[in-house]
Amino acid sequence: MSKTNPGRFFEDFYVGENLHHPVPRTLSEGLRDQYMTFYGSRFAIASASTFANGCGLSRHPLDELIGFHIGFGQTVAEISLNAIANLGYAECRFLKPVYPGETLRAESIVIGLKENSSRKSGIVWVRSTVYDEMSEPVLSWVRWVMVHKRDPDVPAPDTVKPDLQDVVTSKSLVVPNGLDFTGFNFELAGEPHRLGDYQVGEIIDHVDGVTLTDPEHMMATRLWQNTAKVHFNTDARPDGKRLIYGGHIISLARALSFNGLTNAQMIAAINGGSHANPALAGDTVYAWSEVLDAAVLDETRRIGAIRLRLVATKGKHEAGSALKNDEGKYRSEVLLDLDLWALMPT
Amino acid sequence: MSKTNPGRFFEDFYVGENLHHPVPRTLSEGLRDQYMTFYGSRFAIASASTFANGCGLSRHPLDELIGFHIGFGQTVAEISLNAIANLGYAECRFLKPVYPGETLRAESIVIGLKENSSRKSGIVWVRSTVYDEMSEPVLSWVRWVMVHKRDPDVPAPDTVKPDLQDVVTSKSLVVPNGLDFTGFNFELAGEPHRLGDYQVGEIIDHVDGVTLTDPEHMMATRLWQNTAKVHFNTDARPDGKRLIYGGHIISLARALSFNGLTNAQMIAAINGGSHANPALAGDTVYAWSEVLDAAVLDETRRIGAIRLRLVATKGKHEAGSALKNDEGKYRSEVLLDLDLWALMPT
Amino acid sequence: MSKTNPGRFFEDFYVGENLHHPVPRTLSEGLRDQYMTFYGSRFAIASASTFANGCGLSRHPLDELIGFHIGFGQTVAEISLNAIANLGYAECRFLKPVYPGETLRAESIVIGLKENSSRKSGIVWVRSTVYDEMSEPVLSWVRWVMVHKRDPDVPAPDTVKPDLQDVVTSKSLVVPNGLDFTGFNFELAGEPHRLGDYQVGEIIDHVDGVTLTDPEHMMATRLWQNTAKVHFNTDARPDGKRLIYGGHIISLARALSFNGLTNAQMIAAINGGSHANPALAGDTVYAWSEVLDAAVLDETRRIGAIRLRLVATKGKHEAGSALKNDEGKYRSEVLLDLDLWALMPT
Repeated sequence: MSKTNPGRFFEDFYVGENLHHPVPRTLSEGLRDQYMTFYGSRFAIASASTFANGCGLSRHPLDELIGFHIGFGQTVAEISLNAIANLGYAECRFLKPVYPGETLRAESIVIGLKENSSRKSGIVWVRSTVYDEMSEPVLSWVRWVMVHKRDPDVPAPDTVKPDLQDVVTSKSLVVPNGLDFTGFNFELAGEPHRLGDYQVGEIIDHVDGVTLTDPEHMMATRLWQNTAKVHFNTDARPDGKRLIYGGHIISLARALSFNGLTNAQMIAAINGGSHANPALAGDTVYAWSEVLDAAVLDETRRIGAIRLRLVATKGKHEAGSALKNDEGKYRSEVLLDLDLWALMPT
Repeated sequence: MSKTNPGRFFEDFYVGENLHHPVPRTLSEGLRDQYMTFYGSRFAIASASTFANGCGLSRHPLDELIGFHIGFGQTVAEISLNAIANLGYAECRFLKPVYPGETLRAESIVIGLKENSSRKSGIVWVRSTVYDEMSEPVLSWVRWVMVHKRDPDVPAPDTVKPDLQDVVTSKSLVVPNGLDFTGFNFELAGEPHRLGDYQVGEIIDHVDGVTLTDPEHMMATRLWQNTAKVHFNTDARPDGKRLIYGGHIISLARALSFNGLTNAQMIAAINGGSHANPALAGDTVYAWSEVLDAAVLDETRRIGAIRLRLVATKGKHEAGSALKNDEGKYRSEVLLDLDLWALMPT
Repeated sequence: MSKTNPGRFFEDFYVGENLHHPVPRTLSEGLRDQYMTFYGSRFAIASASTFANGCGLSRHPLDELIGFHIGFGQTVAEISLNAIANLGYAECRFLKPVYPGETLRAESIVIGLKENSSRKSGIVWVRSTVYDEMSEPVLSWVRWVMVHKRDPDVPAPDTVKPDLQDVVTSKSLVVPNGLDFTGFNFELAGEPHRLGDYQVGEIIDHVDGVTLTDPEHMMATRLWQNTAKVHFNTDARPDGKRLIYGGHIISLARALSFNGLTNAQMIAAINGGSHANPALAGDTVYAWSEVLDAAVLDETRRIGAIRLRLVATKGKHEAGSALKNDEGKYRSEVLLDLDLWALMPT
């Protein structure tokens, strides 16, 4: 009997199945600097403990995407090792900040299945939740992936398509315990703009671009203990190139968005997202955002939320230009189309 | 008088010489994540403090190879700066786990010398020991290297060949204080296999491959403060390529072996090892293991040891295929042939 | 109104202006290892807490250039985002060591302005000071940069050229609280040389070379939160190459200088410096030093200071050879010409 994990195939999943993912991971303070080496993020709460304390947080949280990437990496071996594509995200909510010293582990529940007409693959929907060492939920998301079948002749399961929210409602966004923006220091944060300064429909060009290299995304992806072979092995794809983990582009675009959205300090939810095209070494990634909505969450503590479409492209393209062509398909230059809520001072 | 270190030559060593290597190094918690960026290791004890605690360890040890690499790096400037080749290892024993906050330093004793027939070089055997800040030994190994002579006319020393064990006996393996596998959580660790599930002679293909890049091995090798010029300087070799530190391949193969040998949680000894061929950027490294032996070390605490041949190759080759050709030389695709003991639940 | 930062242009600066730079940054223990991955530094005080304690320091300082790079990075967005060139440094003094847990922020005062005869750009002199979370100054320097004008027709400001010291006087060097070299362990530090062993005019060839790669300098530069686009984006320069942050070469040359100047343990001042030519991936960096001066700072604690010219070149060139050609311009192989004071046991 083989002792190695061949990954799970479409017919191995059933609706209601609960997967307890290995391996738990203890977060260290060093992750903060690792994250900076890969993305160059400058959001003040994650950068400075003094700034976090000034915003009412007694401890210094790590960037919230660190929790996302580590949890996501934990799900790969059982969910997406044989995935053809990561099709989408929904209902991702950040339930509490992550701190050095905490230990994260992930569980997933299979919430939907649909065999493709080719009978060679199918779509699996899972809801994954990341827990800390006290088993308190830290964040949760739904994603769906296209997974190969081991044997096309295995009968199709009953189709179950989960009923997913298009958008996380602003009322269900979680404000971290203690967070208070009444004394927010805009000068130290880097920009004067508060929630009321942004208009729905406003487009923000984040200006800068970053040219991708293989060593950087490989190191980042290993840091998340994501072992999907396409990221590391030039034998794994016919073109001999390493596919860049989609989450790498999310973090890069988010870091670029500092320029113009400095005060969108903490991501509270990801409403949806698509990795529209593969990113490869040599691509230069630019980003722009569109303001989709705004909500005041806590007037006395001056906490609001801004809903943003965060777009990453290969090469510089006009901010706000159409993402899809006439056939409704993403243009080839679009890498990421992400819909998120971030907390911002009102 | 030159103030720089030209490295020591063969005629500078004498049997019985004791070298106190600079520079001591304090281990930080951040090393845990650095190690993940380079190797993507997923062994549960090194990954999660909660898992380590569940195995009876009151503190959270770093991967044991971190201690090896740092100690090895400390010996380079005095032992192998002028080495032509690192010929082999023996009798490497891990005497206690290494923890953040500890400070390591290394000493070496010259235990053997043999001039080569060319009179231009010779073989130096050293036993190196790494100590913590309390001067307690942390790990120890023998290695032998071929070193240039400064002057071929210097008379040869008496030949002294040390008497080395082929294999560290299972009785002399050290079980870390407190380690207890009775409550080992196989689900969180990632695989259900325990010592009794492995057969001597069994071959395990670790499936995945990783394509090497220069920046990654350079950064890892600097982290170990290993300054051997062939790793960093394209002027140092006629082919203009950077030779990859052999220990980098050890750690990479060990990380790949997670798939199929998840529960070989901690390396207890390295019985021997050869860097069969140089590894260079662009090579894709695969690994397989052969089970060589098994021993129960502590029945009540369910601690066993598995002896493994861990092989790394460039390109994918059939797991378990012959490592050497008809002339008894390593095939050109073999990078590493390592014989080790690892602790595993019984 | 655009919400993004286009950078400041020459006409945006006025003498006496005080800039409070975002974003503060908390230093973590992990920075110590990050610094090693990029530069491979082996100075004993920064490497080992035990060694630092043996030198009278109750806590374990980070490499002093970490404070410099982070502070420098904080000034980029407001000072040099539209800089054509970073022209020089002066009067850089390290006022106290930096420690994990501290939070650094930077301020700059504009101390000089001079429009160029082309009227398209001008030179801006700033004195930047980095403060810890108690608002105590940690280090301070003057630099001058050539900055584009937004509009050539804007009238020139009055020319103000600051009066700068050629050299920080040895009397104004700050010895860290508690530092005491009376028990300095030369064996563990790696070399036996003390201040009295060096002669003014002595040239030290640091022997080794390091070939630069893009991923490494990009990651380092992000760690310093330096967002200047030329370092990251192949679209930003006509040659499609990424310019390497000058501070990367400073740290690399300083790390290479370990070989021969091991006991120049801590940088106390940078008297001046020029990035003589751009450094690019593929260049192999070598370094040599010339002893310019020596001073005893504290006889009872055996603390001296050595003044060094630290030179980095692309490719190997004779140590001590002329840096400039007959026209007084730096030779094309010279990357860095740095004049510094370092603390050394007497």
